[in-house]
Amino acid sequence: MAEASPIPEQMTAISITEPGGPEVLQPHQMEVPEPGPCEVLVRLAAAGVNRPDVMQRQGMYPPPKGASPIPGLEVAGEVVAAGPEVTRYKPGDQVCALVTGGGYADYCVASEGATLPVPAGMDVIEAAALPETFFTVWINVFERAGLQPGEVFLVHGGTSGIGTTAIQLASALGARVFATARGPEKGAICTELGAERAIDYETEDFVEVVKSATDGHGADVILDMVGGDYIQRNIACAAEDGRIHQIAFLRGSKVEVDFMRMMLKRITLTGSTLRARPTSVKAHVARALEEKVWPLLASGKVRPVIDSRYPLTDAAEAHRRMESSAHVGKILLVTGG
Amino acid sequence: MAEASPIPEQMTAISITEPGGPEVLQPHQMEVPEPGPCEVLVRLAAAGVNRPDVMQRQGMYPPPKGASPIPGLEVAGEVVAAGPEVTRYKPGDQVCALVTGGGYADYCVASEGATLPVPAGMDVIEAAALPETFFTVWINVFERAGLQPGEVFLVHGGTSGIGTTAIQLASALGARVFATARGPEKGAICTELGAERAIDYETEDFVEVVKSATDGHGADVILDMVGGDYIQRNIACAAEDGRIHQIAFLRGSKVEVDFMRMMLKRITLTGSTLRARPTSVKAHVARALEEKVWPLLASGKVRPVIDSRYPLTDAAEAHRRMESSAHVGKILLVTGG
Repeated sequence: MAEASPIPEQMTAISITEPGGPEVLQPHQMEVPEPGPCEVLVRLAAAGVNRPDVMQRQGMYPPPKGASPIPGLEVAGEVVAAGPEVTRYKPGDQVCALVTGGGYADYCVASEGATLPVPAGMDVIEAAALPETFFTVWINVFERAGLQPGEVFLVHGGTSGIGTTAIQLASALGARVFATARGPEKGAICTELGAERAIDYETEDFVEVVKSATDGHGADVILDMVGGDYIQRNIACAAEDGRIHQIAFLRGSKVEVDFMRMMLKRITLTGSTLRARPTSVKAHVARALEEKVWPLLASGKVRPVIDSRYPLTDAAEAHRRMESSAHVGKILLVTGG
Repeated sequence: MAEASPIPEQMTAISITEPGGPEVLQPHQMEVPEPGPCEVLVRLAAAGVNRPDVMQRQGMYPPPKGASPIPGLEVAGEVVAAGPEVTRYKPGDQVCALVTGGGYADYCVASEGATLPVPAGMDVIEAAALPETFFTVWINVFERAGLQPGEVFLVHGGTSGIGTTAIQLASALGARVFATARGPEKGAICTELGAERAIDYETEDFVEVVKSATDGHGADVILDMVGGDYIQRNIACAAEDGRIHQIAFLRGSKVEVDFMRMMLKRITLTGSTLRARPTSVKAHVARALEEKVWPLLASGKVRPVIDSRYPLTDAAEAHRRMESSAHVGKILLVTGG
């Protein structure tokens, strides 16, 4: 194992003391993890906060087998050590990575395959906002749903981390983008990011708006994390051969649905979660992102939207911010390192 | 328009006098249709009976725009005339064809693209049993769901026309096949046709049987025409990345479903209907069938399973047979011609 600078034995990490509210997120001193053969050890600049972290805190989303019990699914910082099988990264490299847990800490191990260089010209702290949403949007919208230039794309939660990423990527790659968000301010952010039309879900029906703006065609691809009654409405809103991808069910996953129009319009209903996918899948997505999306980030055509930064030890406040749903874009935890 | 033999002006066809039971199917004298530029006129040997014909008779499945109001979606017989744009077929050729309606008649027009030669060595009457189920199974199971050799395939209604075709094709192309059917006699037919295991849906749970026989893996592809409570059970039965294709909803399309496992297992729920697809799609499928499946029919490795034959003028009896669900395989209407 090559080492660049002295690595302490102990670090600060955020534990979930018991399932509960934000207050159960507590700083603790823990051992710095050691990278496995194909892993790098990253000294964090920042970690991203994501909805699954909130669910994990509430006890509703146990970490997959083998993952750290510490929350945190994405990190950015400096490589300080690398396992013997790691070929690309060496101590001193600035990277960001998708991790299966352990991100709320001063140090975190990451699989080489799920690690990417910080895009040229980007601040390393901002790079912590990239992995979770960019991997999720890419795998669902472009790889699995195969969104094509000129197609109509609808994303719910337009000002969430997923939403701001999806609007920009779909727009940059030539799709017509519609996004739901609450209120005119959030709507304006969606259109600034590239949405042709923002839909205020409190005062407008997204089915009608998308149908009307597309001369009855509807949405070719829908990215949804809402679920509940949106499932039937997504089916109504989808075009023939439309593809609806669920990445969460904030309003629940159990609903009565009439599948007739799914069949008649040949709609595909599917979904996926990222965390439990094998490293080989993540590595495949990482390569696609580096080829297709990192140049857009380097040129500034696409940028992570950062809502706010909290010190790592204020993780509880960061979770309160996320649960308020007042945020626009990503919430970051910044380490002392 | 080239003509081979005198074509009468009038023919017998079966009208739906009003929406209702089998008795509303009544023979009438009608004008023989004229082929359009890209169509052939076929003098029928036989027509196939399908579930959508029953629904059309009941008034629940109106013919698509431009289609004949006469029921009947598949025919076989001899070409007696061809439109000026038709290049492949000429009077005297024995063909079978998928049609958008009008099959319950002595003569029927068919698009050249949806017309296929009668497979070598096959009786022309039996060829009327091919188009609807072979197009449907091919497009759903092989083209859209992409069933691969070695994958696990489950088809419901194993002894229906769709079921007997799906079992044989999936088995011939190297999949492990499971089929649901009622009772041991129908089950034995499924295994004779190539199913590894028939599941008696009255006494067994198909989810448990498929999971147990595949060491917990589940079904990679499910072809379902049942719907209702089968939708949730199909999700439970499907493997990771499984694909569930609905082609009908005999038990209803409106049900409460929990979509969580769809997301967690990355299952695809979709469906399609054949009748309203454009001729270009049908022509594409016809070419694939001729290349991949017609040799299997010519060699006898795959054969249409014929339940029974009725004179065209006994269409009402044929419908009673279908609605009894006692049939195994296809029900045919044989013309006097």
